[in-house]
Order: sequence, then C-alpha cells, then structure tokens
Amino acid sequence: MNREQLLACQNRIKPYIHKTPVLTSRLINKMAEAEVYFKCENFQRMGAYKMRGATNAILQLSEKEKAKGVVTHSSGNFAQALSLAAQSLDVKAHIVMPSTAPEVKKKGVIEYGGKIYECAPNLEARNAAAKAIQEETGATFIHPSNDKNVILGQGTACLELLQEYPDLNAVFAPIGGGGLIAGSALAAFYFGNECRVIGAEPFEVDDAYRSFHSGKIETNATTNTIADGLKTELGDNTLPVILKHVSEIVRVTEAEIIASMRLIWERMKIIVEPSSAVALAALLKDKKKYKNQNVGIIISGGNVDLEHLPF
Amino acid sequence: MNREQLLACQNRIKPYIHKTPVLTSRLINKMAEAEVYFKCENFQRMGAYKMRGATNAILQLSEKEKAKGVVTHSSGNFAQALSLAAQSLDVKAHIVMPSTAPEVKKKGVIEYGGKIYECAPNLEARNAAAKAIQEETGATFIHPSNDKNVILGQGTACLELLQEYPDLNAVFAPIGGGGLIAGSALAAFYFGNECRVIGAEPFEVDDAYRSFHSGKIETNATTNTIADGLKTELGDNTLPVILKHVSEIVRVTEAEIIASMRLIWERMKIIVEPSSAVALAALLKDKKKYKNQNVGIIISGGNVDLEHLPF
Repeated sequence: MNREQLLACQNRIKPYIHKTPVLTSRLINKMAEAEVYFKCENFQRMGAYKMRGATNAILQLSEKEKAKGVVTHSSGNFAQALSLAAQSLDVKAHIVMPSTAPEVKKKGVIEYGGKIYECAPNLEARNAAAKAIQEETGATFIHPSNDKNVILGQGTACLELLQEYPDLNAVFAPIGGGGLIAGSALAAFYFGNECRVIGAEPFEVDDAYRSFHSGKIETNATTNTIADGLKTELGDNTLPVILKHVSEIVRVTEAEIIASMRLIWERMKIIVEPSSAVALAALLKDKKKYKNQNVGIIISGGNVDLEHLPF
Repeated sequence: MNREQLLACQNRIKPYIHKTPVLTSRLINKMAEAEVYFKCENFQRMGAYKMRGATNAILQLSEKEKAKGVVTHSSGNFAQALSLAAQSLDVKAHIVMPSTAPEVKKKGVIEYGGKIYECAPNLEARNAAAKAIQEETGATFIHPSNDKNVILGQGTACLELLQEYPDLNAVFAPIGGGGLIAGSALAAFYFGNECRVIGAEPFEVDDAYRSFHSGKIETNATTNTIADGLKTELGDNTLPVILKHVSEIVRVTEAEIIASMRLIWERMKIIVEPSSAVALAALLKDKKKYKNQNVGIIISGGNVDLEHLPF
C-alpha cells in the first residue's frame, strides 16, 4: 500500500463518494486549547467513511468478478456501505448478518439493495455462511476492515483532510477493525508534514491497545461499549500498518465518550455516532500534549438509533 | 423597510455573524419531488437566526444608548441572541425571563453574559419588569420580533440564500412572532425572482394563520406544540409585512413536525429544533404545488434539549 496506490484510489472512488466538509468549533478549540479540524464523514454517502473502502474494493474487481457479486459479513455500517456501493456500480451484494442484528440495520441494507443472509450470532456461523455464499455464487469476499483495498479507501478521508490542511500536527481516529486508522496512518505517512496519527479506543474493547503493545492480534472477552462500531478486532493487514505508523493508542471511558458526543451534538449541531466521539474524547483527555497545535479528528459516521440515545 | 435598508443591514452585521451553509439532500429532494435548499441557521452563532436581528438592533443604537444597555423579554433563543450580540459589542444586556423558564435557557443567557431578571410567567409581569429596568437603567427595549431592525436582521438569512440561489420559486419559513417570515418576505420581494414566501405554523398555535385571514392580530388560547419557538404572536410591525408579502400560511400537525424533524436528523445528520422542522413539514404537505421547483427552507435553529427529544 504505497503513496501512488493511495492517490490512485482517491481518483478511482471520487465519482462515487462525497468530498466531505471540514468543520471547526470555537468552543471546542477553547476547550482543547488547540485548533481542531473535524473531517465530517457523517455527511458521507450512507452516513459513514466505510463507503470509501467498499467502493474502492468493488472497483478493483474484474468485470467477470463484478458479474458474480460481492459478499461480506457485518452487522454495522460496512453492510450498508457495501450494499450501496454495489448498487451504485450495478453489482450484487450478499450480506451475512447475525440474526440478532437490529431491525434498523437490516432495513438499511435492504433499502440499499443488499441481500441479507441471517446466521447464528457467532464467528463460526458467520464465516461458514460467507463461505457457502462464495461457493454457491462465485461472489468475491470483501472483509470490512482487513482488505487492502478497503484500507486504502478508508485512508482517503485523512488524505482529503491533509490536502486541505497540510500542516496538521496530529490526526485522531477511532479504532475498531483498524481499517480507518491504518488508512489514515498511511495517508499521514505519505502526505503529512510530520503528522502523528493517534488511535482512540474505548477501555471496554481495548484489544487494539493491547495488540499495539504485545505486537500480536488480541481479542476482547466482552464488548460492553456504546461505541458499537468499535467492537471488532484487528487483522493481519491492519496490525502491521498500525504497529509501524501509529504513534499511540489512547483509551477512554464510556462517560468520556458520551460527554464528547453530547458536546459535538450540542455545540456543532451535527449528528455523530458514539464511535466518532471516541476520537474527540481521546484528544480532550490528552490535550496537554497538543497545546496550540493543529489537530485533525476523523468523524467516522452519523448513523445512530434516535430511539436509543445515551442522553 | 426598503431594499437599501436590507442591504445596509447585511453589510452592518456581516462581521458579527456567520454566513451559514446551504445544504441539500438527495433523499429529501426525491420525497419532495423538488430541489430543496436548506439555509442552515442552526450553524449560526448561538445556534439560531435570531443572532442576526439582535446584532442589527444593537448596532443601530447611538453610542450614548449603547452605554446604557439593552433590555428584552424572552424565554427562548432571543434572550441568548441578545446576550451574545451585546457581549460581542461590549453592551450590557438585561433579560427578563419568566421564573418557569427551563434552567438550560437561563444557563445559556448567563454564559453569554446576559443579566437575568425573573418575573411571574404572565404578560403583565413581563412588561412591568422590562419597563422597570428601562426606567432604572435607561436601557433601550428591543422586542424579539416586532422591532423593525430585528425584522431586517432576520431577513438577511433569506437574502443570503437568494444571493446564492437567485432562482428559487418559493421559500418556506416558520412563523412565531413573525420576525423571520416578515424579513424573509421582504428579502424575497426585493431580491427574489418572483419568489413566493410561505409561512409554516403548527395547528396548535395557528394565530398567524388566523391573523393572515382576519387581517388583525389574533392570539392563542393554548400553546400545546413541540415547536417551542413558535408560541408567540404577531405584532403591529410584522403583521402588515406578512399580509402584503406572504403568499400563504400552511398549518401542520405535531406528528408531521416530529416526522420532518426525524427525517432531517436521520438523513442530513444535522441537529435542528422542532420549529425548523415545521417548514419542511409544510413543504411536504403541500408538495404537489412545488413539483420540480426550486424551494428554499429556512432552518431557523438547532437549540434542542437532548434530554427531552420526541423520538
């Protein structure tokens, strides 16, 4: 995943995604004692940065592969992203979802033209279901975070941010499966001006923090966090990039996540999902290190269930 | 209130307000069967268009008047707007609020440097309190909606929208005290290209609808609406402008307001207050009339109490 591949990816997906705005808030700058630039992927198509990676992965398939469709397993934003990206490119999307997935997520997939296959809510059932679909249909499996084309796609959000603000001293992004942070770290390494990349993770699912320190993929025994997009674990493509190019991983409490989410909603008047608030929470926690610096925050998405808010 | 006064007002307040963005949504365009342009005053300073009128009114005072301060009565956005505008211009703001006003509103006023005077929650007490402050301090009274300088200021939101999109066929705005709709109607009359202005009002507080048809100021016996910014009534400066320049007033139900608010939150990922959703609800209700037209919606503000959402 080199500099040229990242630029090529940006050009490839440009017609299918939004160039999202960068917003600022005087009050948050005051609180953080820094100049903070929010890259608003909550305004991305289908409401999250995942649209970027999904689009890039499908565009990299041959015509023959495209004709056979794509398959993934996801209970979250990637299921909807792959469905919408596939629909935009006239490709069939097969989505394996646990039977326990919320109705609102299933509805989203169906609305974007994805075909849902329900499975038991465990890793084995999920993998078996995806495997069966691949064998039956010849569809190409696309992993939600550990696929190199997905990583490159996710990195274009940070790339756009750095093209607009080349002098950022640091960029914060949340870590779930690691696609966003790995892509952001590559973008900062190739296009930043000594820009550090910091991962933000809930204490409740701190597998990436532990992986970062042990050097191998760690797992979570429990996932009791409001940041539902960050429950997944790193993969063999994301971990090496993170180990090499991420400066630090900062963990935050659930209360810190909710307070940051509320701050963004009340002061910036934009809707962000809890996972996005994790990144601001990490900056505010560690703000001494970034005093008077220029800091980017990747707002990963804005898909929340309005009936289950933490306020 | 002529064309030149409106332009002069725009130039006068420019350094003290944000030029707010105009957003669009493919899904809402599809639902409305029209091209809809949202003028996002929820991103205005202190979160609402009222900042415009408050700033203009203070800027029109003489130095001598400014030194004696300003006074208003409001339990809502205008209290905060006048406080912040006064603070920005180094003027003292006296705010009369009913003792029943929510703590969050009082906190906002204090945060922006306004001095609160509590009174009994009725019209007489409110007017008496404001009068006493005027006599004691020599402060100038500024009405939240019926002041001509306030009306001109509120009109600059629609003026900016029309400068950016000159070919709007119609603009929808909510009606409370009538300052926003009167200002918008003047802007459309002087700067629109045969642009109609439509007022949007909840059935539960349809005083403006009745005033529009009777030709005199009507009142509300009850105010059971979620659109807390629209409970006030027209005045002798707003009514004549509305009678002359507004095409129509459309009334909507509480369910229609909540559905529109939810649509904006979920699809546009922005936080708007219920009063703002009233304007979109009116367009969707009457969409047959605007098929394939260019329609502006003034999103009046984004100040909501996250602990009391209607979802």
